[in-house]
Amino acid sequence: MTTSVDLHTYLNSRREQVEAALRDVFPSNWNVPTTLREAMDYSLLAGGKRLRPIFALAAAEAVEGGSGAMARSMPFACAIEMVHTYSLIHDDLPAMDNDDFRRGRPTNHKVYGDAMAVLAGDGLLTHSFHVLASAVKLGVPAERVLAVSEELAKFAGVYGMVGGQALDMEGEQGVTSLEQLESIHLHKTSDLIAFSLRAGGHASEASEDQLRALERFGRNVGLAFQIQDDILDLTGTEEKIGKPVKSDERQEKVTYPFLIGLDESRKRVSALTQEANEALQSAGLTDPRRLYEIAEFLLTRDH
Amino acid sequence: MTTSVDLHTYLNSRREQVEAALRDVFPSNWNVPTTLREAMDYSLLAGGKRLRPIFALAAAEAVEGGSGAMARSMPFACAIEMVHTYSLIHDDLPAMDNDDFRRGRPTNHKVYGDAMAVLAGDGLLTHSFHVLASAVKLGVPAERVLAVSEELAKFAGVYGMVGGQALDMEGEQGVTSLEQLESIHLHKTSDLIAFSLRAGGHASEASEDQLRALERFGRNVGLAFQIQDDILDLTGTEEKIGKPVKSDERQEKVTYPFLIGLDESRKRVSALTQEANEALQSAGLTDPRRLYEIAEFLLTRDH
Repeated sequence: MTTSVDLHTYLNSRREQVEAALRDVFPSNWNVPTTLREAMDYSLLAGGKRLRPIFALAAAEAVEGGSGAMARSMPFACAIEMVHTYSLIHDDLPAMDNDDFRRGRPTNHKVYGDAMAVLAGDGLLTHSFHVLASAVKLGVPAERVLAVSEELAKFAGVYGMVGGQALDMEGEQGVTSLEQLESIHLHKTSDLIAFSLRAGGHASEASEDQLRALERFGRNVGLAFQIQDDILDLTGTEEKIGKPVKSDERQEKVTYPFLIGLDESRKRVSALTQEANEALQSAGLTDPRRLYEIAEFLLTRDH
Repeated sequence: MTTSVDLHTYLNSRREQVEAALRDVFPSNWNVPTTLREAMDYSLLAGGKRLRPIFALAAAEAVEGGSGAMARSMPFACAIEMVHTYSLIHDDLPAMDNDDFRRGRPTNHKVYGDAMAVLAGDGLLTHSFHVLASAVKLGVPAERVLAVSEELAKFAGVYGMVGGQALDMEGEQGVTSLEQLESIHLHKTSDLIAFSLRAGGHASEASEDQLRALERFGRNVGLAFQIQDDILDLTGTEEKIGKPVKSDERQEKVTYPFLIGLDESRKRVSALTQEANEALQSAGLTDPRRLYEIAEFLLTRDH
């Protein structure tokens, strides 16, 4: 057990460690074309909560309870943030959601053009598998690293995130049921968060039961997080959330509050949080405290 | 040593085996969205020479000389063709090369729209890492499979293919030197072919020296193949090569014949073929015959 520090300090410290590692993901002896490198860095180093990589680190720490877990899981954490960043770049493209702003700055293609934005996304996605493989040098067994690689391909790919985005594109004319909307969110958002928890678990050689419990925690938190996002998009202030308020409603995008109302949406967030906590309780982790705290913090946030 | 069959029969047989395996790359219990699946299959199952996957299979066979090598390297072969296919889909996009036809059929985005084409490419790329990981179930050691995964990320990513495409995009206004053009081709085309040879080698647990020799063979063949393509684009008939002749010239794309003339381009193909053969000779392979034959066949083709 580490000395107790408050959650805010923990999150800041982990975020800074992730950002330091992200600045270092491209080998210095690779001759990466300048504009491509700039375009990738523009989005990868644009700040943000670094929620997914922190979940990976926190899961590794929760399983092992020691200080080595964080370092060993860092390659996985970086890979996850790279995959998340690529998905944002591609989702923002004119052909997709056609968004001009992200985190208060022009989107990647507004700065570098559509072609370079496609390539920056492709580059980040591809390189994420290179980065995660380096965990083997930090002592994670090759079988575990390979499992993480295979699972990333599943949860970020046609089963998961890419599949969810395709459902979202197909459904834009007619998402009418909660089931349909939930399926989109589960794949677009929850799958990668669930994977983040599993990846951290693998870094600390978690058991199959622990991996499943961590995944269930991640899936529930991920869905709750997305609903919370829908709620904040309707009720937040522009300054706090970094993009025009009600942008979803203006685009006539179907959201949880639109389908079941604000009150029911809030109840759904509570119920999912409860399910997430139950999953954690069942996992038999050495030190799960941070995971509880992060979920609690995320799901009661106002921006 | 297998019974000698002629190269044509060998290539047809391997191509059919690759295509059968490609029809099976998505697990049947995954609920992949229908349109996404169709869009990926449209390009993945569109025929073609299957040059890269066949090189992987042939390299595995060359190192081991037995019949098990082909089966063990098939997951790598499929992953390579998936990565090659994704790169064609993204390269054809309006934001990139804006091509309407590929192999005599409308390009992916002309059929499924730009958004689905981006996602089909993302899906194929991501899933390729899932497919290759399955080699561990066929008896390839986890360390080797992980090496293949890491190398694919390098040769297909910002160091290799994505980097080459970015150079190509940046350079469109002003590629004037042979050095510049060669650097683009080496990364856009040769890197993935060189990787195909290495991947096959890993499947048969090749030594470091053998891997390096196979990579050098692939890099030289890959570059020669690209120059040959430039030559055929200028001299071939539309029927034979499946796209309008001189399409590169019409787009004012700089090619080898444009920079150094047809005769010098042909000499460069011969010299590279010679270098490729020397690399093979140095590799100490059990049965390198097919690799020689494939290179010879490719670099003297007329379509």
